[in-house]
Parts: sequence; C-alpha cells; structure tokens
Amino acid sequence: MLRDRLHRGANRAHQRPFTGASPTCHRLSGQKRHGWLAMSAASDTATVTTLKAAGEGRTVAGKITEPTGKTDKGMIDTQPPRGTRDFFPEDMRLRNWLFGEFAAVSTAFGFEQFDAPVLESEELFVRKAGEEITDQLYNFEDKGQRRVALRPELTPSLARLVLQRGKTLPLPAKWFAIGQCWRYERMTRGRRREHYQWNMDIVGVSGVEAEAELLAAVVMLFERVGLSSRDVGIKVSSRKVLQSVMSQFGVPPESFAKVCVIVDKLDKIGRVKVESELADLGVAPSTIDGVLSAMSLTSLEQLADLLGPNSEAVQDLTRLFQLAEGYGYKEWLVFDPSVVRGLAYYTGVVFEGFDREGKLRAICGGGRYDRLLGAFGGDNAPMAGFGFGDAVIVELLKESGKLPAPPHRVDDVVVPLDASLRPAASGIASRLRRGGRSVDLVLEAKKMKWAFKHAEKLNASRLVLVGASEWERGNVVVKDLAKFEQMEVPADSLV
Amino acid sequence: MLRDRLHRGANRAHQRPFTGASPTCHRLSGQKRHGWLAMSAASDTATVTTLKAAGEGRTVAGKITEPTGKTDKGMIDTQPPRGTRDFFPEDMRLRNWLFGEFAAVSTAFGFEQFDAPVLESEELFVRKAGEEITDQLYNFEDKGQRRVALRPELTPSLARLVLQRGKTLPLPAKWFAIGQCWRYERMTRGRRREHYQWNMDIVGVSGVEAEAELLAAVVMLFERVGLSSRDVGIKVSSRKVLQSVMSQFGVPPESFAKVCVIVDKLDKIGRVKVESELADLGVAPSTIDGVLSAMSLTSLEQLADLLGPNSEAVQDLTRLFQLAEGYGYKEWLVFDPSVVRGLAYYTGVVFEGFDREGKLRAICGGGRYDRLLGAFGGDNAPMAGFGFGDAVIVELLKESGKLPAPPHRVDDVVVPLDASLRPAASGIASRLRRGGRSVDLVLEAKKMKWAFKHAEKLNASRLVLVGASEWERGNVVVKDLAKFEQMEVPADSLV
Repeated sequence: MLRDRLHRGANRAHQRPFTGASPTCHRLSGQKRHGWLAMSAASDTATVTTLKAAGEGRTVAGKITEPTGKTDKGMIDTQPPRGTRDFFPEDMRLRNWLFGEFAAVSTAFGFEQFDAPVLESEELFVRKAGEEITDQLYNFEDKGQRRVALRPELTPSLARLVLQRGKTLPLPAKWFAIGQCWRYERMTRGRRREHYQWNMDIVGVSGVEAEAELLAAVVMLFERVGLSSRDVGIKVSSRKVLQSVMSQFGVPPESFAKVCVIVDKLDKIGRVKVESELADLGVAPSTIDGVLSAMSLTSLEQLADLLGPNSEAVQDLTRLFQLAEGYGYKEWLVFDPSVVRGLAYYTGVVFEGFDREGKLRAICGGGRYDRLLGAFGGDNAPMAGFGFGDAVIVELLKESGKLPAPPHRVDDVVVPLDASLRPAASGIASRLRRGGRSVDLVLEAKKMKWAFKHAEKLNASRLVLVGASEWERGNVVVKDLAKFEQMEVPADSLV
Repeated sequence: MLRDRLHRGANRAHQRPFTGASPTCHRLSGQKRHGWLAMSAASDTATVTTLKAAGEGRTVAGKITEPTGKTDKGMIDTQPPRGTRDFFPEDMRLRNWLFGEFAAVSTAFGFEQFDAPVLESEELFVRKAGEEITDQLYNFEDKGQRRVALRPELTPSLARLVLQRGKTLPLPAKWFAIGQCWRYERMTRGRRREHYQWNMDIVGVSGVEAEAELLAAVVMLFERVGLSSRDVGIKVSSRKVLQSVMSQFGVPPESFAKVCVIVDKLDKIGRVKVESELADLGVAPSTIDGVLSAMSLTSLEQLADLLGPNSEAVQDLTRLFQLAEGYGYKEWLVFDPSVVRGLAYYTGVVFEGFDREGKLRAICGGGRYDRLLGAFGGDNAPMAGFGFGDAVIVELLKESGKLPAPPHRVDDVVVPLDASLRPAASGIASRLRRGGRSVDLVLEAKKMKWAFKHAEKLNASRLVLVGASEWERGNVVVKDLAKFEQMEVPADSLV
C-alpha cells in the first residue's frame, strides 16, 4: 500500500522529535511533518540508506527502469533533502501571507524590490572573521571548476549590484528583497539548512535617519502580524560603543570585526568562553574586562558617562531615540550595548528584534555597514539594512496563537451533470473566469453529493450546475451556498 | 573611478554580442546588460581570472583584508555567476508583473500553489532516456557526500510531494508552482543556466478534460499578456500516435521514451540526424519511415485513416478539440503529430505553445504523464501538467512591443524642511503609511528643487512639506503634483 511504502524510507524520522533550533521547538513534536515549522525529516540513517540505493542505481545502469532513476529497491525518498522544507498548499498559503506582509511594509516605505541569484561566486562570501554564517557556507565547485555558494545572506549580493551600477545608481537607493538563504553545517541538531529572509536596505544615507526608518519598518511588520511592544522589542546599540572602548584600551582596529563576532556570542556561549576566545585573539585581560563591563550598561546616560557626551556612539543613539519618538515606536526600543550582531561588516548602529519572554532566538537583525563596498574593492557608500527571517517570527506567532491559517477558496464550482455537457460547462467556466471569478471546474463524472462536499471544502460561494433540461433552454442552475438559495439563470447573463 | 574599475573584470563580456538561445537574440545586443533578457555577461576568460584571484585569496589567507574575501587584486567580479541573472528593481517589477499574471490565471482556475526545495536529491532527476534536461543536470556532491541537484524542472518534485501525501491527498489535486530551475552545460553559446518556470498540474483526472483545462489556462495567460491566436498557437498531439505506429511495427515498448526524445529533436537536428539516431537505437529502417511519415500528418482525419477511428490517440484528440470549442479557444490549437516533447515521462496528450512567426523556441510545453509515480516506486495516478518558462514569453512580448515597463511609484514624498523637523516628518510618514499609503520619507538634507525632481522620479501624487512655521500651527503643506495645487492642512487630518 502506498502509505506503507511511503513510511518505509522515513520511518525513523517520524519517531524523532522535531529538533528545531529554538528552545521551544520540542513542544511542536506532534505537528504535521510537512508543516511550515517542520524540519526536513529524514534522519541520517534514512537519508544515507536512500542515497546509497540511488548511488547504486547510477553505477549499475542496467538496474535503472525507464523513465526515471528509481531503482529496484522500492520507492524513492519522498522527503526533501535534509534540512530543507516542502511547501504543501497550506504551507504555501502561510508563506504567501507572510511574504505579502513583508512586501506590503516595504511598499509602504517606498522601497523597490530586487533579487540576485541564489547561487553566487564563493568569493562574495569569504570573510575571515570567524562568523557562523561564513563558516557554514553551502559552497561547492561547479562542473567548470568555479567555486560557487548558495547564498547565506542577501547583503553581499546587494553590495555587488550596487557596485555593478556604480555611479549611475541614483542615491539614496531604498531596496528590499525576499530570498532563500542557505547554510551547511554538519551538526546533527536538526537545524534547517535553508530559510527565507526579508531584507530592507538604504544606500546613500549616512545619518541614523536611515536606521530609524528601517526600525520603523520592522515595527510596522510586527504590528501588521498582530504583535505589540509587550510581545516583542528591538535591542539597539552601536558598534561604535565597542570601538570606543577598544580604542581607549589601545586595541588595534584590525581585530575589531573578530572581537565583535566573539562578543556577539555572549548569550550563547557565556562570559567565560567569550573571555577565553578574546584572550586567544590576543586581547589583554584589562581590555576584556573593560569591553564586557561596557556591555552591561543599561542606559544612554551611563554610556555618556563612560564615553563622554561627544562620543559618536552616544550622539547617534540619542538621535535615534529622538526619531523613534517622532515615529511613535519608542516603546519598542531597548538600549542594550551587548547587542553587536554576528556579522563582521557592521560599523555603526546595530539592532535585533527579540521576544519579550526571551524564549526564542533573534527575530531579525540589522545595522549600518558603511565599509562593505570598500572591502569589495569599490568606493564606500553609507549603507544600512536588516535581515528578517521566516522562521522565528512564525514560531513566535504560533506560540502566541496569532498564526493565521489562510484557507483555500474559490468563487464558483462548475459541475456538468453529464459527459455531453462538458463542453458547455467549459464555456461557462471560461465566461466566469474572464469576469474575474475563481472557478473550479469539475473534470470528472461525480455525484451531486460529492459536488456539494467539494464546493464546501473549497469554501466556494456558488455551485453552478449545468444540466441537460436547463441547458436546452440556455440556462444553468446557480446555488448560492451561503444563502441556501437556488435559481435558474440564462447562461449568458451569468456573472 | 568606480565605473572604470567595474569594467575591468567584465570588459570582454561587454564587447561580446548577447548570445541567447533564440535566433532573434542578436538583435538585442545593444540592450542593458542587467536586463531581464540579458545573459550573465562574464566571458570565460573574465570569469576564470576573477575566480582564480578568489582561489588564491583562500589559500593565501594573509592577503585577505577584513571583513570580506576581496583580494588585493582589485574589485570583486560584480557580475552574477555565468548563466545567471540579477534582477534590478526595473527587472523585478517586470518579473513580478509576469509572475502575477501566472498566479492570477492559476487562481482563476482554482489551483493551489505549492513549492519544493530548489535543491533536491539527485535521484529524483536521474533518467536514462537521453533527455537534454537530465544530461544537463546541475548536480554535485554536498559536504555530507550526498548527491544533490539544483532542480531542472518542477514535475519530479510535485510527484515526490504527491507520493509523500499518499492516499491522504484529496483528488483531484490542482496545483501550481512558480520556481527557479537550473541546468549546467559546458557549451559556450551563452545559454542561460537558470530560468523561472510556471507549472500547473492536475492529479487524479484520467480524461482529456484535464489537458483541455490546462490548455485553457495557457490561452488565458496569452490573452492576459496581450497576445492573440494570430500571434501564438498551441501544437497538440498525443504520444499514443507514436506508440501506435511503433507497436504496428513491432518495436518493443522499452524503447518508447528514447524514441520520443530523439523524434522531439526533428526540428532542431533535422530528419537525417534523427534517422541515424533511431538507427543507432536499433529501430529498423521501415519503422523509422513509418514513424516519420506519421509525424507529417496534418489532420485528425488523416490520423484516423492511419490508426483507425477506435484508436485511443484519435479519440483523445477528437474529444480534446470538442472541449476546446466549448471553452472557446479552438482557434489557438493546431494538430501536429511531430510534437512529442523532449521529456521521457509523457504518456498521452502532449502540447507546446509556439509563436506563429516561428522565430522562437517553444513558449511552453506539457502533457499527460500517467506513469511517473510508478516509475518512482509508488502507485500510479493520472497526472497532466505544463511548464511555462519566463524567457521565451518575454522575448516574444519584447519583439512585438507588448512588454510592459511597470514604473516605480509611491503615493507621497514627505520632506522635512530642516533637521529639527525630522521627528515630526517621521510621525507624518507613519500616519500616512498606517493609512495605507506608500510613502518615501526624505532622510537627508535636500533642497526643494531636488525634492520636486525626486517626487517626479517616484511618480508620486503628493509632496508633503514639513516646514517650521506651518508646523508651529500643527500644519503641513501638501502639494498635489497632478493638479499643481498646494494647501496647508492640519497634520492630524492628513490621509
């Protein structure tokens, strides 16, 4: 039986609890495997077995049956590759809803959409700062011996496009993108290897007005999906805090990106491990103490005391909070100097969205990166932006019961009551569709009872029956499924 | 200078004529490189040089400057990987327009959207019928020694999802997808390595009503983008024609898929080469003659004469044309038995969209594939569908001057007239955005002249000026850019 055979390959996977990256994920173990939140199922064992079978199929060509690569060992693995997701229609409706919200916010802010290939030259992502994102690059050599990578993030592609346009690009440019990003890591924790990310970036604005505008967009997204500042907040700081402290202690600027990447792991690996990694980098103990105590400040006043009121960090952040008040989202922001973000390229304000209960990873993150173009060999331009993934926000909405479940629906279901009436029913479906209606045309011989249940399942508002006697009069029967009314109408008046 | 440095890497590419796959492409050589129709530019030489530099960067780590992988040899390659495209905002607006049409037609037909990973297990695509699509598989081994491939088409993933759902999938299922597909070929002709494809598939309907419905959707798409049956048509046949002829000549059914793949190349490689490939496969000369003469029939009457009126091919196609008449798209169809399609898995009706002038490749193609699930080791289910790429349709629309150029536009441009008014302007932008308007907020100190030009460039309908004296009264100045009118209004009444 189909189901039995289906389970042969992925059996072990079904018995494994869902092991997402969030601490709350174990609660979701009972959900449907194919859901938005679900991991690629196949356990190591299952995947290896299946791929071994496929491998044999390739080498022993005689065993391959036409026209596909299925071997004589049974069914192909019906699960997507480890760490990736399928989007069944119910998942896709949710994805379309979320991406629609991303796009609506971007449009409200006057941003233009761009995209770049999911496969880029590896060189675009090679950085040596020890970031998780570049350590886990999904890279390989193509058949032309070129080093390529599935993009781990969208910002380097944006920078490449900006450099490609060069001086012909009108500034400021306000661009957004929604794209799939990939990583490869060998850990067996069951983290996903792909996610979608929404990015908004502003090129050419050097003031914190850019960051304030980006934060306003993040807040608008939160509001649109039903979250309030009691549910989520955005931690804000500036890399200039760390930079000032480091320069006070005489740390050379070359170490800056690496120090940031290490300090970013404070929450994850703890103070002791961060101290030891900073020491390995050659940072002096007194500097480490200074850096980490600056990370524990809780107000801009304390920061001004530490760095002086003329410090750029203090001025930027003070201005940012003023603007936030103007926009009306000040209550969403929290000054937190321990936020430095794990990407090497940030140079100024950095921020990350968080759930107030503190159960999940960062919801989104971003900041200013004024020297990325220069690092690629171009002329620098002020740039700021954020990345907002599709995973944590959905977990959060699910946790709080705010995740919508958009239904599939059509306007009309058209049913020919016998085979000879199919051409007539086709014409009626055509007419309705041209008029802007969504029409499910029943393509097989089905009983009336089936048609009613089918129309109900599709949340149809009408059932249009094409029967022989009415059709002789040029008419069809229209059943209004909300009003439980039915009437015979001329087919050529149907709208 | 930025532009000069930009051109250093891709210089040779700019001098090469655009070499798309269509015979008309040389006409487009003067267009912008980054356009929808444009190829990835970098010539072999340019690409290899750049990647060599990146490779050295990886091995000689000391040469890498923080925080990116840029070497000391200059700018990174700003072109996307060979054979891939960037989507600048103007390209993205066109793509969104086309994908929007794909989705609108699918919705009009009551289809539900799905998606699957762009990266699938290689086994899903391994077939031995000599198809171009599987010969050019963009496959590689991941770091876990798994054979994976960037999907060359969407149908095998659909089949995998259908098998994964098994008997719990309500039939008929009517699904669509819009996804990127990849191929890898070493030829230097400059063909693209990726394109997007729109698929619509019906699972569980065995009659040609399914094919007729799919053809209706293709026709609706053509109509929506402004094409008529004088511009394009759809060639229709059935694999059962070839099958009947082959069985009349006693050819074993195992060769069927391979014969189809060879015969499909008739237009491309010519009769002599097809005859020789069929002979290589062991097909007898008399059979070859029989097959090829059947391919030159021009009417269903001739087909009935050859195969007999009870032949399934004749009955299917007769029924299909009756349904086409019912739908009202009969004039778009052309019976052409030389259409067999180049995919191994088709089993019944096959069709392909073509431009009446015959200048381009097939616009779309599809048909029935009732045995694909079985080939994957599952229970067969009747399936029919089509793939419709994003390349040829755009070429055709461009050729015929019907390609739209959707502009970027916002509703309002909000301009604070001095820095102290930025928080106020931010609040006004917020208010307008919450009210559903698309608002570009000017984030830098700009002159009024710039603001007017900027608003014009963004096709804004209003310019909202936040000036000190009006703001003291709680007012802003609104300029209606269509009516050339201006008035001072209370900020809190602004909508």
